[in-house]
Amino acid sequence: MASILSLDCPLPQLDFDRILLGHGSGGLLTNKLLEAGVFDLLNNDWLAEKHDGAILELSGKVAFSTDSYVVSPVFFPGGNIGELAVNGTVNDLAMCGASARYLSLSFILEEGLLMTDFWEILLSIRQACAVAGVQVVTGDTKVVERGKGDGIFINTTGIGPLHPQSDIHTRRVQPGDKILISGPIAAHGMAILSVREGLEFESAIRSDTRPLKDMALRLLDTAGAQVRLLRDPTRGGVATTLNEIARDRRLGIALEQSLLPIDDVVASACEILGLDPLYVANEGIFLAIVDPEAEPAALEAIRSFEGGQSACTIGRVVVEHPGQVVLRSRIGGKRVVGMLPGEQLPRIC
Amino acid sequence: MASILSLDCPLPQLDFDRILLGHGSGGLLTNKLLEAGVFDLLNNDWLAEKHDGAILELSGKVAFSTDSYVVSPVFFPGGNIGELAVNGTVNDLAMCGASARYLSLSFILEEGLLMTDFWEILLSIRQACAVAGVQVVTGDTKVVERGKGDGIFINTTGIGPLHPQSDIHTRRVQPGDKILISGPIAAHGMAILSVREGLEFESAIRSDTRPLKDMALRLLDTAGAQVRLLRDPTRGGVATTLNEIARDRRLGIALEQSLLPIDDVVASACEILGLDPLYVANEGIFLAIVDPEAEPAALEAIRSFEGGQSACTIGRVVVEHPGQVVLRSRIGGKRVVGMLPGEQLPRIC
Repeated sequence: MASILSLDCPLPQLDFDRILLGHGSGGLLTNKLLEAGVFDLLNNDWLAEKHDGAILELSGKVAFSTDSYVVSPVFFPGGNIGELAVNGTVNDLAMCGASARYLSLSFILEEGLLMTDFWEILLSIRQACAVAGVQVVTGDTKVVERGKGDGIFINTTGIGPLHPQSDIHTRRVQPGDKILISGPIAAHGMAILSVREGLEFESAIRSDTRPLKDMALRLLDTAGAQVRLLRDPTRGGVATTLNEIARDRRLGIALEQSLLPIDDVVASACEILGLDPLYVANEGIFLAIVDPEAEPAALEAIRSFEGGQSACTIGRVVVEHPGQVVLRSRIGGKRVVGMLPGEQLPRIC
Repeated sequence: MASILSLDCPLPQLDFDRILLGHGSGGLLTNKLLEAGVFDLLNNDWLAEKHDGAILELSGKVAFSTDSYVVSPVFFPGGNIGELAVNGTVNDLAMCGASARYLSLSFILEEGLLMTDFWEILLSIRQACAVAGVQVVTGDTKVVERGKGDGIFINTTGIGPLHPQSDIHTRRVQPGDKILISGPIAAHGMAILSVREGLEFESAIRSDTRPLKDMALRLLDTAGAQVRLLRDPTRGGVATTLNEIARDRRLGIALEQSLLPIDDVVASACEILGLDPLYVANEGIFLAIVDPEAEPAALEAIRSFEGGQSACTIGRVVVEHPGQVVLRSRIGGKRVVGMLPGEQLPRIC
């Protein structure tokens, strides 16, 4: 996407081709950097004020969420750190039952970052904002010396109004509830790992990064408060997210391995590398725990979206084995799927 | 302050004394780290939900501001990166005319950071939040490998309701307006520099980091819309901030050197090191551009606060030399004070 956009938005003529320490000074160089493109690219009335913050008109319940993104490498099949930083925070708000509307955008750049790379990331941010229907209204840029950072880290923090029917809380999860997943697992983590380790599979594995906002809001339109909980299984994967829920709610979770959607190439890659896809990070899917009555309509709502076509039920909430996630394998055996004990893939997002 | 607090809040017994990569995994180790103290220390109903974001009830106009903090060293005379990260964002909101209420808190930790250091920073964050009357309602923790970060970087993003009489915009600045400063300049930058360079002065220079919220709100109570603009002169100092205003508003700014408040020890340190205090960073003062009618009451309001006792008028807005800041020296000479061209002191905040 960035390559199409960059035809319309070439990198401006600048007297520097790499980020310098002075770009973080708050002085003339910072101004040059911002005016060379950031303000034009993300142009809106809030940024035009060039003040220390943005004034927003809000009313009622809003969700507020933050994430810092340190993914390595910053460019990977299917995306880069820029769109990940937009989609990730948009999705955290969606998981709260909210429609992301405003983002803050804060960069920690390492001295020496190529301006062409920074530009491509900015273009991706703009594109991802347009797709997700959010605006960057305030920001910050810091620069650290070579060897004190790693190219670029991004923080985005988002605000958006809550869906009026949303009543999402872990405490509302009940025995008998169905556990739905919106799409195939493990694509993001395996995309990062394949480029990091220089692995080539029969077909390229692409990150599933995408905004989940429309999908989650449609689900709430359809099933309202019958949606008990939404969570996107990013770092630590599906297993870690479900373990947190089981532990916090002191209920059991029963999963069916045969129902877990996974693309063949991703499954093969996991097998070759000895990784359990249940622990691999995702960036474009979510888990929905719903009242069993709402299951058919909920699946239909999710399946109507790109990225949601393979939505399905993967398990249910049970009173047995409280605090534990138990997986029934294809051949009928059962095993406890614990929380990720250490680090499987560092800096995945 | 942290040392007093830490008597009440000793570092919990942990099976690690340094941050590990796994603390950023989103799995068991992340949970251990957060539950070992972060959740207890910053305890509130929003954090207790342990969801991807916080649900807030807001109405009307709110300000929204973000900053990433990369100050080096993280501990310095008068403070550390933790309280700086709280006060900095509280102050950005205050400069918008808003009362900070909610903060997000996001860490990028370097593998190997000492838990005792992280704990002291957390205690400072808690203390600074209590002083400023704000709550951390959502957060994030990432860990990068040794050599890919620098101990700790912190992003805080804040939200708070706008003061009802606030009407702060650069476009409202008029010729004849008075330029007020709330306290002595250059303390923060010189405190950082003295520890970074191992310099010792006759008495220690301490950072002026403090929340400016109450002072700014009282000023708005007193002078309302006669306050045209508020800005805290952090990176780049007073000179850079005033240059931005002069340039954006296409008006001149006339400063009187003899009126600029500066502590003797800070002035001597600047002289020894050949630094112009007008470009040195501040963290606990602000500039207010006010209608001349409001000047006496505005100064009285600011002077009633600790840290505001030496508030005074340092100049005025003029139609001459548009876009430029001109300083009249003690002996009557005039010189243009430009914007900081490069980097004077990197990583000052």
